Amino acid sequence: MSSNSFGKLLTVTTFGESHGPAIGCVIDGCPPGLALVPEDFAHDLARRATGRTRHTSQRRETDAVDILSGVYEGRTTGTPIALLIRNTDARSRDYDDLLDTFRPAHADYTYWQKYGIRDPRGGGRSSARETTMRVAAAVIAKKWLAERHGVRVRGYLAQLGETVPRLPADSAIDWDAVERNPFFWPDAAQVPELEAVMDALRKAGDSVGARVTVVAEGVPPGWGEPIYGKLDAELAAALMSINAVKGVEIGAGFAAVAQRGSQHRDEITPERFLSNHAGGILGGISSGQPVICSIALKPTSSIRIPGRSVNLRGEAIEVVTNGRHDPCVGIRATPIAEAMVALVLMDQALRHRAQCGDVGPVAPRIPGG
Amino acid sequence: MSSNSFGKLLTVTTFGESHGPAIGCVIDGCPPGLALVPEDFAHDLARRATGRTRHTSQRRETDAVDILSGVYEGRTTGTPIALLIRNTDARSRDYDDLLDTFRPAHADYTYWQKYGIRDPRGGGRSSARETTMRVAAAVIAKKWLAERHGVRVRGYLAQLGETVPRLPADSAIDWDAVERNPFFWPDAAQVPELEAVMDALRKAGDSVGARVTVVAEGVPPGWGEPIYGKLDAELAAALMSINAVKGVEIGAGFAAVAQRGSQHRDEITPERFLSNHAGGILGGISSGQPVICSIALKPTSSIRIPGRSVNLRGEAIEVVTNGRHDPCVGIRATPIAEAMVALVLMDQALRHRAQCGDVGPVAPRIPGG
Amino acid sequence: MSSNSFGKLLTVTTFGESHGPAIGCVIDGCPPGLALVPEDFAHDLARRATGRTRHTSQRRETDAVDILSGVYEGRTTGTPIALLIRNTDARSRDYDDLLDTFRPAHADYTYWQKYGIRDPRGGGRSSARETTMRVAAAVIAKKWLAERHGVRVRGYLAQLGETVPRLPADSAIDWDAVERNPFFWPDAAQVPELEAVMDALRKAGDSVGARVTVVAEGVPPGWGEPIYGKLDAELAAALMSINAVKGVEIGAGFAAVAQRGSQHRDEITPERFLSNHAGGILGGISSGQPVICSIALKPTSSIRIPGRSVNLRGEAIEVVTNGRHDPCVGIRATPIAEAMVALVLMDQALRHRAQCGDVGPVAPRIPGG
Amino acid sequence: MSSNSFGKLLTVTTFGESHGPAIGCVIDGCPPGLALVPEDFAHDLARRATGRTRHTSQRRETDAVDILSGVYEGRTTGTPIALLIRNTDARSRDYDDLLDTFRPAHADYTYWQKYGIRDPRGGGRSSARETTMRVAAAVIAKKWLAERHGVRVRGYLAQLGETVPRLPADSAIDWDAVERNPFFWPDAAQVPELEAVMDALRKAGDSVGARVTVVAEGVPPGWGEPIYGKLDAELAAALMSINAVKGVEIGAGFAAVAQRGSQHRDEITPERFLSNHAGGILGGISSGQPVICSIALKPTSSIRIPGRSVNLRGEAIEVVTNGRHDPCVGIRATPIAEAMVALVLMDQALRHRAQCGDVGPVAPRIPGG
Repeated sequence: MSSNSFGKLLTVTTFGESHGPAIGCVIDGCPPGLALVPEDFAHDLARRATGRTRHTSQRRETDAVDILSGVYEGRTTGTPIALLIRNTDARSRDYDDLLDTFRPAHADYTYWQKYGIRDPRGGGRSSARETTMRVAAAVIAKKWLAERHGVRVRGYLAQLGETVPRLPADSAIDWDAVERNPFFWPDAAQVPELEAVMDALRKAGDSVGARVTVVAEGVPPGWGEPIYGKLDAELAAALMSINAVKGVEIGAGFAAVAQRGSQHRDEITPERFLSNHAGGILGGISSGQPVICSIALKPTSSIRIPGRSVNLRGEAIEVVTNGRHDPCVGIRATPIAEAMVALVLMDQALRHRAQCGDVGPVAPRIPGG
Repeated sequence: MSSNSFGKLLTVTTFGESHGPAIGCVIDGCPPGLALVPEDFAHDLARRATGRTRHTSQRRETDAVDILSGVYEGRTTGTPIALLIRNTDARSRDYDDLLDTFRPAHADYTYWQKYGIRDPRGGGRSSARETTMRVAAAVIAKKWLAERHGVRVRGYLAQLGETVPRLPADSAIDWDAVERNPFFWPDAAQVPELEAVMDALRKAGDSVGARVTVVAEGVPPGWGEPIYGKLDAELAAALMSINAVKGVEIGAGFAAVAQRGSQHRDEITPERFLSNHAGGILGGISSGQPVICSIALKPTSSIRIPGRSVNLRGEAIEVVTNGRHDPCVGIRATPIAEAMVALVLMDQALRHRAQCGDVGPVAPRIPGG
Repeated sequence: MSSNSFGKLLTVTTFGESHGPAIGCVIDGCPPGLALVPEDFAHDLARRATGRTRHTSQRRETDAVDILSGVYEGRTTGTPIALLIRNTDARSRDYDDLLDTFRPAHADYTYWQKYGIRDPRGGGRSSARETTMRVAAAVIAKKWLAERHGVRVRGYLAQLGETVPRLPADSAIDWDAVERNPFFWPDAAQVPELEAVMDALRKAGDSVGARVTVVAEGVPPGWGEPIYGKLDAELAAALMSINAVKGVEIGAGFAAVAQRGSQHRDEITPERFLSNHAGGILGGISSGQPVICSIALKPTSSIRIPGRSVNLRGEAIEVVTNGRHDPCVGIRATPIAEAMVALVLMDQALRHRAQCGDVGPVAPRIPGG
Repeated sequence: MSSNSFGKLLTVTTFGESHGPAIGCVIDGCPPGLALVPEDFAHDLARRATGRTRHTSQRRETDAVDILSGVYEGRTTGTPIALLIRNTDARSRDYDDLLDTFRPAHADYTYWQKYGIRDPRGGGRSSARETTMRVAAAVIAKKWLAERHGVRVRGYLAQLGETVPRLPADSAIDWDAVERNPFFWPDAAQVPELEAVMDALRKAGDSVGARVTVVAEGVPPGWGEPIYGKLDAELAAALMSINAVKGVEIGAGFAAVAQRGSQHRDEITPERFLSNHAGGILGGISSGQPVICSIALKPTSSIRIPGRSVNLRGEAIEVVTNGRHDPCVGIRATPIAEAMVALVLMDQALRHRAQCGDVGPVAPRIPGG
C-alpha cells in the first residue's frame, strides 16, 4: 500500500505540500448512505487550525473543504470521496534562505538523503499542514462511529512542558472545559498559567513539548485483529505517524513498567471492570471499556534561538527559524490525535464486520465493557 | 493484508496456537542468494526460549526449526521460506479449569466477544508462543541487514520493575555483559540484585513490568517512507504488537514532553550530530544515527495471587493461574523486540531500494549520521 | 502484499516446491465457527490429483492434509488456518539432466534471469504442484459460500484441443456427467473419443491445450468492488495466475467483439434477465445471474518430442522431457479454476459485508438476478 | 487496499464521477527526479478523448491537467503526485429520465443493489470518464519506463466488429499508420472501410465490439512475481478492470487451446527465441521478448435501439439511450489499455528492483529475450 495511504478498508490517501497549490485526500471504502455536507468539516478544522490565538503559528488558512466526489445529494455513495483545500496563505519567501539549509531536528536532511531532491517551501510534504486532511477525513469516521455505534472520540492536553493539569480524584475529564479553551486543557482555572508559559516561550524564542490523551468511549468489545493488526498496534502506528510524536502509550503505558501484576490487571465483576490500566484493549481487541491512548510530542524545532547545522555543501552554518511556527505544536495535535484514533476505529469496525458479522450475541457482556 | 502478516515487501505470516501441533511462519519477498541453514536459528531462539533459567516459565520447547521451502542448497531462492516448529511440551491439562474462565487482563474475554469461540489451551493464538516465529523470521532479516548493510540490531533490559541499570556517564551499553546474563542487563554487577527481585516475586506469586530498549546501529540515512509508512510509525506498530507491550518510545520518547526545543533538537556539525534525542529518525526517515526505541511491558497477568473475574455464564469467580508462567515477561521480550525492529528495517530497506534505487550519491553525509 | 498471497480479507498464502519436503498454505480471515475437519479436503484434492488415470502424470501423492492451526474442536476459530501436505512421491532424479537446462516454454529461463538461482527439482516453485494448496484452501471457501449464501461453484472442460462437447440446445450442463468422467466433460457419450485423442497424444509424445469453464450459481447481486477491485478483474487475475493459462473470458468473452450492442446487452424483465452475455457481472459487480468464466490453457511444454533450447552456458542444446507429465494439463485445471473462483467470491463477499453490511433490502431484485 | 487504487509500489488512486465537478488521481511511489510538466499529459489524453472525430461520443472535455503536488521545479520529488481535471462539458440533463431506470447491460442495476444509492448523472463512477485518469497516470509510467529501461508500450485496434486488419506476413505492425488514424488501425488502406462500418452503425443506432492488442517492447527478463503476483495475472486484472472488457489474452491466448505442445512452445537458440506464443511471459515472469496482450471489448450498451428493462419500482419499461455515446467504445480503449499495461510494468519493475536489485548479471541472456 502507498505510504501516503492509511487504513485497510477505510482507506485515506493524502497529498499536497505546505506551500503547493492545494492539499487533499481521497477516502475510499466509506459505507454508502452517510449524510455528508461541506459544513461538516468546519468545526474540527477550526480546532486544528493555526492563527486562531496568539499561541499558534500566525498562518491563516480558510481551510474551505471542496467535496469533489463520492457524495450525491448529500449522501455518500460508496465511491471514493475526494476532499480538496486550496492553500491561500503560503508565504514561501520566508523560506528562501532555507533552500540549501538543513534545519536541525527537521526532515530537511533525511528527505534530501532519501530522495536527492526536496520541496523546501514551508517544509513541503513533511509540514504539519498535511495533518489538515487527516482531520478532514476523520470527520467522516467520527460521524459514522457516532451514528452507527454511539462511539465518541475526544482528546485533551495532558501535559504542556512541565505543567500538568489538576484533575479531580476520579480523573474524570471536564470535556466542556476542554472545548472552551485553545489549549484543550481540562482544568479551566489553569488556563492563565498556560498562557503565561506560552508567552514566556514565545518571548524566549523557544518551544516546549506536550502530552495529549485521547479517549474513545462506547467502543464495543471485539474490535481489533490479532496478531499484527492489533487495535493497539494500529493506534500506535497511526499516532506515531503524526508529526513530532516521539512516544505512544495505551492505558497505563510506561507506568506499567513499575507495576505489579496484582495491581495492573483489571479485575472483573459481573457489574463492571474494576479498573482500566489496559486502556480498553486486551490481546489487541477492544474490551468494551474506554480506549485510552496518550502521545508525547517533542518541542517544535523551528525556534528563533540559533542552532548549529550544515548546508547542502556540507559547511557548518548557524540556523535561525523565522517563519510562522507554533511554540508548542502539541496543542494543535489534540484534534489530529483524535482523528487518527477515529480512523483506526472505523477501519477496525468494518474489518470486524467483514470477518465476524454473523457471530451471534455472545453472553455475558460486562456493562461498559 | 492478513492481520497475521507483517511487512510490505518482506512479508512474514505466522500461524499456530500455543498448544496446537505446531507453530510456523512463511517469509515472502526475501532476496535470493542469502545463505541460510537450520542452525542459523538456534542462537536467537534460545535467547527467547523459556525454561533456560528459574526466572522464566518452565515450559521447555526444543524449538527445532524445519525449513520447508524457499531454500535450495543452502541459499534462499526468492520463493517463500516456510519455517515450522513442532510443539513438544504443551501441557494443556493445566488449562482445563480455565475452559469457561475469563482470566483478568488476558485476551480470553475479548477473543470470546469477537469470535464467539476460542481455543483455551495455553492461551491459544494469544499466547506469547507466537513470538517464537517472529524471532525465527527475524534471523533472516538480521543476517541480510548485517551482510548487505552492516546493520546491527541489539536490545537490552532498561528497567525491571523499579530497578534501573547503572549506565556509564556516556550511556554506552556493554553489549558483552548484556549477552552474558539471562536478564539482558547491561550492568553485570547488578545481576544478583535482579535475581533477588525475581525470587521474591516468584515467592509472592506476583509479577512485574519491564522496559526494553533496542538499538540499531549502521542504518544508513534514507530508510523510511513518509507519511503513514514512517519508519517510526512502523516501528511503533511492530513493537506494540508484541504481547504485553503498553508503550513505545523513539529516542527521547516521553521525556521530550518536558524538553525545550533548544534542548531537544539534535544540532549538526560537519563531523557529527551532537546528540540523538530523535532516536535516529527525522520526518519518518532514518538520519544515519543509531535508531533507538524503547517499549514498556506490563507485568504478566498470570499470577498466583487470586483475582476476581467472571465465567462464561457471567458469574463472579476467583481466578488463580497455576500454569507455567514468567514473573516478568519483559525479560524474554528483548530478542522479540530486536526481531520486530530488524523486520521493519529490512522491509523499509527493500522499499527504499524500490523507489530510490537510482538516487545517486547525495552529498554531504554526516559521519555516523 | 506478498506475491505468494492471494485475497484481501480471506488471504491465502502458499509455500513449497514440487520436490521439497512439503507444500502448505495459511488461510487468514476465515469467519469463526465454520465446521472443518481434515476429511473435507479429500474430494477436491482427489479431483485435482495426478496418477488417478492413465491420462495424467503418473506421480501419485497421497495429498493428506494436516490442519496445523486455526481449528478447535472441529470449528474454525478466526485465527489463521495452516494446512500442510508432505510430498511423498517426488522423484528428483528425473530432473538431474535438467539442472543446467532451460526447457522451452517453461519458467526455467525466467526464474534464472530474475533470481540468479533456481530450484530445478520438478520445476521447483513454478510447478503445478503449488495449485494443490489452492484447491485445499478453496475447500473452505466453497463450504462457507454454500452454507452461508447457497453459492455453488462448478467447472467443466469446454474444449480439449480441437474437440468441443456437444451441449443441448439450451446449453445446460449435465453436472452429474461432468463429475463421473476423468475429463470433467459434460457429454458422457464423447468420453471414448477423448480417450482416443489422449492416447494418440501420449503415443506421439505431444500435448494439447484446453478450455475450462466455471459457473458460480447463487451469487447474490452486489458482490464486487469498482474500480480496480472489480469482481471480473479479480477473477481474471486469479484465473490467469494458474499455471499454463493464456486467456480469460467473462460471459461472452471474445465472442463479444463481433456482437452488436442490441445483441449483447442482456435485456431485463421483471421476471428475469433474458440472456447472460455479461456472465453475471455488470460494472464489476455481480448481477445475481450465474457468474461464468472461461480460461484457455496452453498445451504442456513437457513433451517427449525434442526441442531446441540453450543451457546455462548459453550453448545450443536439444531438450527432451522424460519426467511424469500430463499430455493435457487443462484437464486437471478444472478443480483449480473452481478453487480460484471460489476464493475470489468469498473474499468479495466479506468485503461487501464490510462496506455495505447495513444496506437495507433494495427493491426490486430480479429473480435469479 | 482501496478498490479505487491500483498497483503495489507505484500506486494510483482515482476518484471522480462522470458529471461531478472534477476527476483526479493520486500517484504514489514514483521515483524522485523524473522530469514532469503539465504538457506531458496532452498527447495521450487527446488520443483517449471523445469528440475528436464523428466516430466517438460528442462530449468535448478540455482535459487540462493540473498538477497539485509531488513536483518541484519540474521534477518529481518522491511524494504523491495529485492530478486534477475539471469536468467542463457534463450535460446531466440528458440523464434526467434515467434517474429511476436500470439500463440493460449497464452498472445501474448492480450499483443500486450493492450500495442502495447511486449517482445517475452520466453513469456516475461507472462511466468510462474515470479512465481518463488512468491514461494521465500512465503518462508518468510510460516516461519512466522509456527513460530508465527503454521500454515502449503501444497498442492498436486488432478487430472492429467483424473487420480484421490485413497485416503483413510477419505480422509486423505499422505503428506510424496506427498513430495517424482515429481507429488506431494498423492498415491505413482499410480506414475508409472502417468509417463506413461506423457510419452504418451510428445510423442504425447500434454498436459493435472490438479487440485491442498492446505490445510492450524492451521489457527486460525478470519482471513479474510468482505466484499470485505474476506479470500476466496482474495484466489480466488491469485490463479486465477497463470498462466493457470481457476477455484478456496473453500471447497466443485462446488459440493455444487447439495448439500442440510441439507447436506452442517457443524454442530457443543462442541467437533468439524462434516464436512468441507465450507473449513474452513464462511462469509469470518476463522473458525479454515483447509482452503482448489482447482484450475483447463488448459493444457499448448505450444505443438508440429500444430495449426492455425494469425501473426502480420493478416495472417493465423500454429504454432508449439518447446521451452522447460511442458506437464502438473499443476504439478509444487503445490508449487506456496501453496505460494499464504501462502501470503494471512500472510497478513490477520497482518490485523487481526491491527484491532482486543486487542480483548480478546472469548469463546467458537471449538477445531480445
